[in-house]
Amino acid sequence: MTLNNDRRIGRYAVLLLISEDPKETKDSIERLGWRACSGKVGSMEASKVVAAIETAARKNDIVQTGLYRESHALYHAIIEALQGVTRGQVQLGSVLRTVGLRFAVVRGKPYNNSEEGEWIAVSLYGTIGAPIKGAEHETIGMGINHI
Amino acid sequence: MTLNNDRRIGRYAVLLLISEDPKETKDSIERLGWRACSGKVGSMEASKVVAAIETAARKNDIVQTGLYRESHALYHAIIEALQGVTRGQVQLGSVLRTVGLRFAVVRGKPYNNSEEGEWIAVSLYGTIGAPIKGAEHETIGMGINHI
Amino acid sequence: MTLNNDRRIGRYAVLLLISEDPKETKDSIERLGWRACSGKVGSMEASKVVAAIETAARKNDIVQTGLYRESHALYHAIIEALQGVTRGQVQLGSVLRTVGLRFAVVRGKPYNNSEEGEWIAVSLYGTIGAPIKGAEHETIGMGINHI
Amino acid sequence: MTLNNDRRIGRYAVLLLISEDPKETKDSIERLGWRACSGKVGSMEASKVVAAIETAARKNDIVQTGLYRESHALYHAIIEALQGVTRGQVQLGSVLRTVGLRFAVVRGKPYNNSEEGEWIAVSLYGTIGAPIKGAEHETIGMGINHI
Amino acid sequence: MTLNNDRRIGRYAVLLLISEDPKETKDSIERLGWRACSGKVGSMEASKVVAAIETAARKNDIVQTGLYRESHALYHAIIEALQGVTRGQVQLGSVLRTVGLRFAVVRGKPYNNSEEGEWIAVSLYGTIGAPIKGAEHETIGMGINHI
Amino acid sequence: MTLNNDRRIGRYAVLLLISEDPKETKDSIERLGWRACSGKVGSMEASKVVAAIETAARKNDIVQTGLYRESHALYHAIIEALQGVTRGQVQLGSVLRTVGLRFAVVRGKPYNNSEEGEWIAVSLYGTIGAPIKGAEHETIGMGINHI
Ligand SMILES: [Mg+2]
Ligand SMILES: [Mg+2]
Ligand SMILES: [Mg+2]
Ligand SMILES: [Mg+2]
Ligand SMILES: [Mg+2]
Ligand SMILES: [Mg+2]
Repeated sequence: MTLNNDRRIGRYAVLLLISEDPKETKDSIERLGWRACSGKVGSMEASKVVAAIETAARKNDIVQTGLYRESHALYHAIIEALQGVTRGQVQLGSVLRTVGLRFAVVRGKPYNNSEEGEWIAVSLYGTIGAPIKGAEHETIGMGINHI
Repeated sequence: MTLNNDRRIGRYAVLLLISEDPKETKDSIERLGWRACSGKVGSMEASKVVAAIETAARKNDIVQTGLYRESHALYHAIIEALQGVTRGQVQLGSVLRTVGLRFAVVRGKPYNNSEEGEWIAVSLYGTIGAPIKGAEHETIGMGINHI
Repeated sequence: MTLNNDRRIGRYAVLLLISEDPKETKDSIERLGWRACSGKVGSMEASKVVAAIETAARKNDIVQTGLYRESHALYHAIIEALQGVTRGQVQLGSVLRTVGLRFAVVRGKPYNNSEEGEWIAVSLYGTIGAPIKGAEHETIGMGINHI
Repeated sequence: MTLNNDRRIGRYAVLLLISEDPKETKDSIERLGWRACSGKVGSMEASKVVAAIETAARKNDIVQTGLYRESHALYHAIIEALQGVTRGQVQLGSVLRTVGLRFAVVRGKPYNNSEEGEWIAVSLYGTIGAPIKGAEHETIGMGINHI
Repeated sequence: MTLNNDRRIGRYAVLLLISEDPKETKDSIERLGWRACSGKVGSMEASKVVAAIETAARKNDIVQTGLYRESHALYHAIIEALQGVTRGQVQLGSVLRTVGLRFAVVRGKPYNNSEEGEWIAVSLYGTIGAPIKGAEHETIGMGINHI
Repeated sequence: MTLNNDRRIGRYAVLLLISEDPKETKDSIERLGWRACSGKVGSMEASKVVAAIETAARKNDIVQTGLYRESHALYHAIIEALQGVTRGQVQLGSVLRTVGLRFAVVRGKPYNNSEEGEWIAVSLYGTIGAPIKGAEHETIGMGINHI
């Protein structure tokens, strides 16, 4: 069931956000026959971050609209990614901080054994800080789930 | 106090671990006159991960041995990175999981305003899972602190 | 101070919500001379869940209105029950999820030793999920406190 | 994608542990063509609780040994169930408390839409308290995941 | 049910640890007819901190040995105090840190309305840091419960 | 790097809030050449507590306005203090509770070794409880950070 080194789905999801050449990352993902999307969201509300990612994933056919199974897999991956971003409590405005994030969602088969099936990776990268321009530092998060 | 786009310390710390060409990342960091180190640690004990990073950071003069101020900055950055890795409770073996991680520590001045001084970024990337070979998925975390 | 097998207060509180025959459970509780109430609440706000349970417990004389000691016991039992429901952060709408819950509160003496006095159990059972009809799974929680 | 009222997988998993007539619950589960197992574990180490459930689920063919996808689904369901049991931090002996638990694992198709596929429910019920006989109260937890 | 200004039980518990003149605090507590004890504990294990406080509280008749009701009230007050000390996860050695603490337990009636009965306050004050002499800063915590 | 017994910055910050003679504490702080401020805030929103402390610290020149480095140090100290106050989740109104707090911020050099530089302590003391007059108990929290 080993994780294939050329199919590290989480690494691809993060590289889509921080690589010098995201186009190259996108190509690698497509060459594997996987699906991916990315986008931007800035908010003081964690729920808006969740919604932005869910909407993008549906619009880009990463997850099937109306199939809860897939939404459930995506939701937990998003929350796990948010835990990396928030480091302690999944809260933004309620503790007076805001985020400016880029996100990516990748769906593919990262394991050698094909029975391991499809997995989903959600990555987040951007800044977190006070609601004052520039009073912020970088933050990252990634969640991975079977789908 | 804006974060300088070419000095995104957290991004560099993560690229050191996942870039196609980490040598190029290392060069960029050195060109900025910053210090960085990286290493590996695998364990079922979070305390071993903390210790490995602290030891590497001291040996490579990223933080000054014997100066608590700097150890304190590093420690909190490590714990924040571990929150991304563990997503919920900073526990490994006690909830029957193990990690195989690479880590990087970067110290530099990411802000345009030089009075913002030095900051430290700790990044973690690798796998987390059951103590059974291959029963694991990727994980990432990053912590940033002023130093 | 052993917990009496026929007076398992938490089990009764949960059976009130999920048993085939809740009437039978209610009878067992009344035969012990205990007090119980149950109700329903659906919300994206955890505070509304707390309020619904507190109100029901006061209206049904499970806790004495105006006595903080009893409200305090109830409050912590509710929060503990919510931790089972939310599994990680006691948040609903702020992480874009909603609940449809039934709740029960039981007050009685579950221990053989009468000096152990009265205890309170709060149980929650229902669904948690996205604010989209059907995109939800079951959830349960229980909190127990001395009162 | 509605959750079918007669196929409430989480409710079945809990009833297996607390019903007056668990045999009846077992029969209902089997009539649906689902798989289930149950067992006991007492420990001051959360990792032992995780291991006991994983072992039982494998031995009873609830999850397929050697398929990480299924172990991953089970693992997260176990941790979610433990969050209900521990209510705050998934720790036992490290905060000087111990559990005596019964557990159940049920695998089946709880949704009307067959495309929603299989899900897994892990339930825990028993006592938590000080490592002193009788100094304990009841506790419950349930985790649900797509598998 | 107002909290009486001269009977602020939590404030007394903290003053016992940090006041210039703890003797005066002790006298005030005794003049109210309340019971109190204090002690010291240093450890990398949170369970040792819990045990030290529980033992002291029993030996000094703050709580009644063998009565779970009172142990339960004390235990939750201790854990709440530890949350202030640890600020995030109730872990010490497992995240490579250690504490040197003084603790106090006070039992009394802080409310004007005598029906509010007895409450217990647990306070902790000392240092937390790396297992290296001097690499530490101060920390405080307090838990309050009805008993 | 030992913490100097007469310069326990956290203890001073707490004494400013609970001492019989806060004037004396203030004098001791000023004799050390340190800066301190204190104030009051009551709210059901944690973000208001954060904002009140940040504003007071800036107005009283405890931290330099426009320097993110210092705001970052203060912010994390505030959140750590709030963890002591909230004991579990840094939430107030969203779990139907409110606080009435006094806060203090102290900035100074607590260590013998002058290279350890300046540190900041944030203390909180007051009451937490239901949004019903008198239905509340005391709470405390303290956060310490290098600045
Ligand atoms: Mg996982
Ligand atoms: Mg920060
Ligand atoms: Mg308890
Ligand atoms: Mg779920
Ligand atoms: Mg309380
Ligand atoms: Mg610290």
